[in-house]
Amino acid sequence: MTIIDIIEKKKRKQELTHEQIAFVIKGMLDKTIEDYQISSLLMAIVLNGMTLDETVYLTEEMLNSGDKIDLSSIEGVVVDKHSTGGVGDKVTLILAPLLASLGIKIAKMSGRGLGHTGGTIDKLEAIPGYQVELSREEFIKQVNDIGISIISQSGNIVPADKKLYALRDVTGTVDSIPLIASSIMSKKIASGADLIFIDVKVGSGALMNNLEDAKKLANTMIEIGKRFNKMVICILTDMNEPLGYAIGNSLEVKEAIESLNGYGPKDVMELIVSIASLVLNKTKNIDMDEARDMCMKQLTNGQAYNKFKQLVEYQHGTIEDIKIASKVFSVKSPKSGYINEIDALSLGEVAREIGAGRLTKDDVIDPTVGLVLTHKTGDYVNENDELLKVYLNEKDIKIDDILKCFNISSDKMKKVPLIYEILD
Amino acid sequence: MTIIDIIEKKKRKQELTHEQIAFVIKGMLDKTIEDYQISSLLMAIVLNGMTLDETVYLTEEMLNSGDKIDLSSIEGVVVDKHSTGGVGDKVTLILAPLLASLGIKIAKMSGRGLGHTGGTIDKLEAIPGYQVELSREEFIKQVNDIGISIISQSGNIVPADKKLYALRDVTGTVDSIPLIASSIMSKKIASGADLIFIDVKVGSGALMNNLEDAKKLANTMIEIGKRFNKMVICILTDMNEPLGYAIGNSLEVKEAIESLNGYGPKDVMELIVSIASLVLNKTKNIDMDEARDMCMKQLTNGQAYNKFKQLVEYQHGTIEDIKIASKVFSVKSPKSGYINEIDALSLGEVAREIGAGRLTKDDVIDPTVGLVLTHKTGDYVNENDELLKVYLNEKDIKIDDILKCFNISSDKMKKVPLIYEILD
Repeated sequence: MTIIDIIEKKKRKQELTHEQIAFVIKGMLDKTIEDYQISSLLMAIVLNGMTLDETVYLTEEMLNSGDKIDLSSIEGVVVDKHSTGGVGDKVTLILAPLLASLGIKIAKMSGRGLGHTGGTIDKLEAIPGYQVELSREEFIKQVNDIGISIISQSGNIVPADKKLYALRDVTGTVDSIPLIASSIMSKKIASGADLIFIDVKVGSGALMNNLEDAKKLANTMIEIGKRFNKMVICILTDMNEPLGYAIGNSLEVKEAIESLNGYGPKDVMELIVSIASLVLNKTKNIDMDEARDMCMKQLTNGQAYNKFKQLVEYQHGTIEDIKIASKVFSVKSPKSGYINEIDALSLGEVAREIGAGRLTKDDVIDPTVGLVLTHKTGDYVNENDELLKVYLNEKDIKIDDILKCFNISSDKMKKVPLIYEILD
Repeated sequence: MTIIDIIEKKKRKQELTHEQIAFVIKGMLDKTIEDYQISSLLMAIVLNGMTLDETVYLTEEMLNSGDKIDLSSIEGVVVDKHSTGGVGDKVTLILAPLLASLGIKIAKMSGRGLGHTGGTIDKLEAIPGYQVELSREEFIKQVNDIGISIISQSGNIVPADKKLYALRDVTGTVDSIPLIASSIMSKKIASGADLIFIDVKVGSGALMNNLEDAKKLANTMIEIGKRFNKMVICILTDMNEPLGYAIGNSLEVKEAIESLNGYGPKDVMELIVSIASLVLNKTKNIDMDEARDMCMKQLTNGQAYNKFKQLVEYQHGTIEDIKIASKVFSVKSPKSGYINEIDALSLGEVAREIGAGRLTKDDVIDPTVGLVLTHKTGDYVNENDELLKVYLNEKDIKIDDILKCFNISSDKMKKVPLIYEILD
C-alpha cells in the first residue's frame, strides 16, 4: 500500500478501505506521509466526496488518534452541544445552565477556535476570574456536584483532527461535508457525552451556505453517531443575520444573562426553548408542549440564571466584574426603509477587526469590545435612527464597512425562519 | 491575491488569470507558497481542468522561469523531436540522423528521465566514449559543422517544471492534459527549435491510455505552439506493444543501427519514414510521395547511417565498442497460438528490474542488459517456439513475469494500426 495508490484511487472516485484510511491517518501523524501528499488527497476528497463508510472509518481513525474522556462516573444522561459557528452565537451560555437546572448533566469541553468572535471559552473568560482549565477529576467532580461544568479542551483529544484541520485551513480544503462531519464527530465522541446536540448554522455567515448542504452534513453526523452508539440531534438554524443583538464576548455574556432571566432577544429565546425542550423530550420522554412550558418556567423563575451563577462561581468567576469598552459610537441609518438584510459574516469581520475575535491563534481577544444591533431584519427604520452601537477601545472602525452590512429598502422582504428543520 | 483564493477558485472550476498563474509559479520557486498548497492546487487542476488560455499562461510562466536557448546562429530550419515515452522507443536515434542527412538541422537537448528504459541520452551513453555534455558554443558549432548534435539538457532550463514535476510525481497528479502539455511545451520552446515534432504514444504502455485523450493532448500542444510562433506536429502512435524488438539501451542502439541501414523492424521503419517525410513536406514543401522515396533512399544508400556515425564520432563515441550482456536466456512459448498482445508496460518493468532503467534518479543504468522479442503481435507461434531473449548480468528475472506479458490464443485478434493520426 502506498499513499500515491490511495490518492490515485480517490482521484478516480473510488471508495477507500478502512485499512487505507488508517494508513493515511497513521502516516500523517508519524510523518511517513508528507503534507503535500495529504493535501492532494484532501482536494480529491473535497471534489470527489466520500461514502458514509469512508467517513465513519475516518472518524474512527481520528478518534483513536488521541485520548477519550470517560464520563461513566457521572450519573444520568450527559449532554454535549456543538455549534458549527455563527456570529453572535451565545446559545451554549444559556442552554447549558437551563438544561442543568432541569437535571440534565452538562460536561462540556469547548475549544477556543478561530472566528469572528471568540468561542464559548473566550466568552466565559470575559467573566473576570472564570477558570477554564480544570483537571479531569475536578471537572467530573463539579458535574456530579452541581450538574454542570464548561472547561477548555485539554489533553490530547483527536490530535489527527488538529493536524488535518490546520492543513485544510491553508489548502482550500475546508468545505467538504465528509471532512467536516468526521472532524466534528470525532471530537464529540471523544468527549464522552451520551447525547450530542449539534446546531448546524445555515447562511451567508455560516460554514454551510445552503439548506441542502446543511441537511447532508446533519444526516452524515447522525449516521456516524449511530455507528458509535451516540444519539445525535441536529437543528438547522439560520445564520443570515447575527443571532440576537450582541456581537463580542462581554456583550454576548450580558445578553446571555438577560436571556437566562427570560428577557433575551426573541430569536435567541425561541432557539433556546426549542433546543432545550427537544433535549428534555429525547432524554426524559417528556411531551414537547410540557417540555416547552418547563423551559419557559426555568427562564422566568430565576432557576436557569441561578444555575449559571452557580457554574460561574464554582469556576471562580465574578459576574459583577464583567467590563464593556467605554468608547461608544452610535451608527445611524442613512435612509428610511425596512432592514431586509444584516450581513452576519461582514459584521463578524468588523467585530474581529476591533479585537473581538482572532485571525491567528496567537491573536489576543479584547473581551470588552463589540457591536450591539438596535434592530433585527424586518424592522422599519427612519433616516438617522440608530442601526447599532459600537463599543471600542484602541482599534478604529470604518463606518462604511458597517453600513454596507445593511440592506435597507422601501419594500419589505419575506423574513426567513430561524429554525429550518430538526433532524435526528 | 493569496494562494488560498487561487486554490478556491480552481476548486470551483473557474478560470485563473495570467497574473494568478504567475503568482503560483513565482511563489513555488521562491518558496513563499508551500508545497502542500501547490499540490492541493494541482489536484484541483487534475480534476477540474484548465482552459487553453490558462495552459498557455502556465507554459509561459514556466518557460520564463529559466534559460532559453538561442539557436538563431544556426542556418536553416531547426527541428526538435519529442516522444511522450514508450517501451522500446529508439525513434530519435534513427530519425535525427536521417533528417540531418537530408539537410534538416537537428539541435537536440535531451533529458535522461525516469522510465522503464533510459531516455535518448542514456541510449547514446551505451556507446562507449559518447560525450553527452557540451558547452552551448560547442553544441551550436557542431550543428553548423555536421548538421546534428544530441546532448544532455544542461543549464537552468525550465526549473519551474522540474520542481512541479517532482511534486506531481509523488502526489498522484501526473495525468492531467494541461499539466502534461505545458510541461512538454515549456521545455521544447525553451530549447529554441523552429519545428517541434511530438510523438504522442497511446496505449497501455503510454502516458495517454486512449486515443481521445491523446488527441486532446496533441491539440493542446499545437495550440500552445501557435501562441509562441512554433510549428508543432503531433503523430499519435500505438504503444500497446513495444516498438521494434529490442528493449534496453545497447540493444536498442543496435536495432537503431540496423534501421539506419534499411533493415530495421517493420514498425520502426514505417514510423521513421512517416515522420521524416512529413517533416520534409512541412519544412521544404516536398510532395509526400517524393519525400517518402527520399527517406527510403537515405536509409538504404548508407547516408543516414553515415550521418549517425559522424554524430557519434564528433561526440567521441565508438560504435564498435557497444557491449551486450553475455548471459542470455531464451523464453519459450508455453502453448501454440496467435500472439494477440504483448504488454509493453509490464515488459518495460521487467527490463527496468534487470537494470535497463531507473526507478529513482540515483539508480545506475546497466546499458548492456535488456530484452529482444522474437515476434510481434499477430504472429503465430508453436509451443516451445522462442518468445524473446533476455540479456542479463547480475540481476535475475522471474519467467512468470515475462510470460504474463503475452496473450496467446487460438483466435487471431485484429491488430491495431501503428500510426493512428497525424495532427498539426
